[in-house]
Amino acid sequence: MILRERNPDNLEFPFAALESFITPNDRFYVRSHFPTPRLDGESWRLRVDGCVEKAMELSFEQIATMPAKSLITTMECAGNSRIFLPKAKGVQWELGATSTAEWLGVPLSAVLNEAGIKAEALEVVLEGADRGEIKDEPKPAGDIAYSRSLPLEKAMADNVILAYKMNGEGLSAEHGYPLRAIVAGQYGMASVKWLKRLTVIDHVFNGYWQTIDYAYWERNGGEPTRKPITDMLVKSEIARPSMDQRIVAGSVYPIFGAAWTGPEAEIDHVEVSTDGGRSWGEATLLQKPQRYSWVLWQYEWRVPPEARTYTLMSRATDTAGETQPDKHDSDRATYMINFVLPVTVEVR
Amino acid sequence: MILRERNPDNLEFPFAALESFITPNDRFYVRSHFPTPRLDGESWRLRVDGCVEKAMELSFEQIATMPAKSLITTMECAGNSRIFLPKAKGVQWELGATSTAEWLGVPLSAVLNEAGIKAEALEVVLEGADRGEIKDEPKPAGDIAYSRSLPLEKAMADNVILAYKMNGEGLSAEHGYPLRAIVAGQYGMASVKWLKRLTVIDHVFNGYWQTIDYAYWERNGGEPTRKPITDMLVKSEIARPSMDQRIVAGSVYPIFGAAWTGPEAEIDHVEVSTDGGRSWGEATLLQKPQRYSWVLWQYEWRVPPEARTYTLMSRATDTAGETQPDKHDSDRATYMINFVLPVTVEVR
Repeated sequence: MILRERNPDNLEFPFAALESFITPNDRFYVRSHFPTPRLDGESWRLRVDGCVEKAMELSFEQIATMPAKSLITTMECAGNSRIFLPKAKGVQWELGATSTAEWLGVPLSAVLNEAGIKAEALEVVLEGADRGEIKDEPKPAGDIAYSRSLPLEKAMADNVILAYKMNGEGLSAEHGYPLRAIVAGQYGMASVKWLKRLTVIDHVFNGYWQTIDYAYWERNGGEPTRKPITDMLVKSEIARPSMDQRIVAGSVYPIFGAAWTGPEAEIDHVEVSTDGGRSWGEATLLQKPQRYSWVLWQYEWRVPPEARTYTLMSRATDTAGETQPDKHDSDRATYMINFVLPVTVEVR
Repeated sequence: MILRERNPDNLEFPFAALESFITPNDRFYVRSHFPTPRLDGESWRLRVDGCVEKAMELSFEQIATMPAKSLITTMECAGNSRIFLPKAKGVQWELGATSTAEWLGVPLSAVLNEAGIKAEALEVVLEGADRGEIKDEPKPAGDIAYSRSLPLEKAMADNVILAYKMNGEGLSAEHGYPLRAIVAGQYGMASVKWLKRLTVIDHVFNGYWQTIDYAYWERNGGEPTRKPITDMLVKSEIARPSMDQRIVAGSVYPIFGAAWTGPEAEIDHVEVSTDGGRSWGEATLLQKPQRYSWVLWQYEWRVPPEARTYTLMSRATDTAGETQPDKHDSDRATYMINFVLPVTVEVR
């Protein structure tokens, strides 16, 4: 793992070492906002309150004995690839703040239905046990908890679970032990770790991590309006070769990577260019694309005999017709980075 | 006037010189976010569009011939008194980013009714002709216009007019010529100057000046949620004596100031302390309190013969029972500053 920040720990999956569809647990990227909570599963409780018929406190055992559901999802940090933007503040992620796992848990809808949702309910706030002080203005005073809300309709959908197993193992402390949310198809910030409280509210929650941080500007013919970051954008990444790698002239090199998109579509196709975007060929998808998870792809490059620098690119398109843009939209600041990234290599 | 910033111009009313209920136009504080637009009243048009039956462009003459309405209002900048907070960023206002004028204009409701509001309408965005680039993150890319929204119900209320006269004179360029909003009882940021467009929208507008700037954190037993700054808080200020003024021992000194509150109440009473808050006496209100405008007040201080430093304070309470707090709430950062401010004077 590549250490990007220590305490809070931010660890990157070395994307050049991508081998498998499922990311092993010890290689799954770690994004932490505050020091890792060390929770005791025995005494831990999930509080469910707010606009519900019956406020509850659920033990780990109560949750683990409810009907379980499994989801294979790719999760990408909204700031993944930030290092490729000019002078961007924040954790300097390269390509590996993205990983795929099979999660087992209980549907969020089941827990909310158990508590009984009142008619006036509009959103659900997911609150983690991780908390601390924000450094930059505009910030709330004192310590706050990491929290995000989901509109009720999204919270009740079948791509949202409260997970207690990751690839068949109990969660590690770094990944949210004992219970975390998985919001399949959204950037990682929605999948709140170390869950301690679900609060059903009758208004829009404008918490720090959906207004100041993890938010972007949208304009549709009017002045910009601030929106929470939610769904992942269509994206592909080249795992190998890596930037500035040397490649043997006249050989056949298998360009290899992964591609994924948001919760409303699957990957349709991936194109590869070996001449800086002048011409494109279609990559082979190594799995049948599934909703919520990446697809690995490969492209056989017949490396020319001419020794010089070549610029490789990959470009994914999803079944909704969305494709990767040529450049980054600065209204997204240092988030939602899915532009076609040139990878230069040395042919010798 | 006290110059606080030049281009954009930010000018403070010298509050120690407060003499009259109505602030003369050339002493009314000026708050600008960008260079002052110099608009031509002949070619200027107010565009009304969005969720309306009939999008319109109104000339100044068309607006000036509609039935007019007058409002006497006190307007305070949301950052007034900021200089008294520790190390606060922003224009260093002392006491004088507050002033009172009589405004003449047309009700915003009349203009919207003329255009015909569609059923899905939720808010109205008021956009000024002043625009420029924001310096601090998180910020939208490029130039944006100064703009604020009002929920439809607030926009249709009778305390909102589009004003073209200020104390009987046409607006000056600094105060929004040819047309500005007046949202009586809200902090000044709501009273958009140099109006060029009203857009009725079917969603919540999260513009820069109501999410990043001119917003605060509210918590009601939960994690903080970001809210636009709107209504003025109850407040009083001592105009005279001013900070560190020398006063003759054994004399009678008329402590003099003003007090105001938000749009849902009037000032009920003002108390004065001359011993740093240990004991309080009631000030005399010099007018019958009116909704939306300040009341001037006076308190006869029988100055003790003992020569030393005295700490004066004033504290207003409104008819809703709200009173000034002892200290500033840091969830409001450098805005909505209405704590009881100590004024120390030297008795000799």
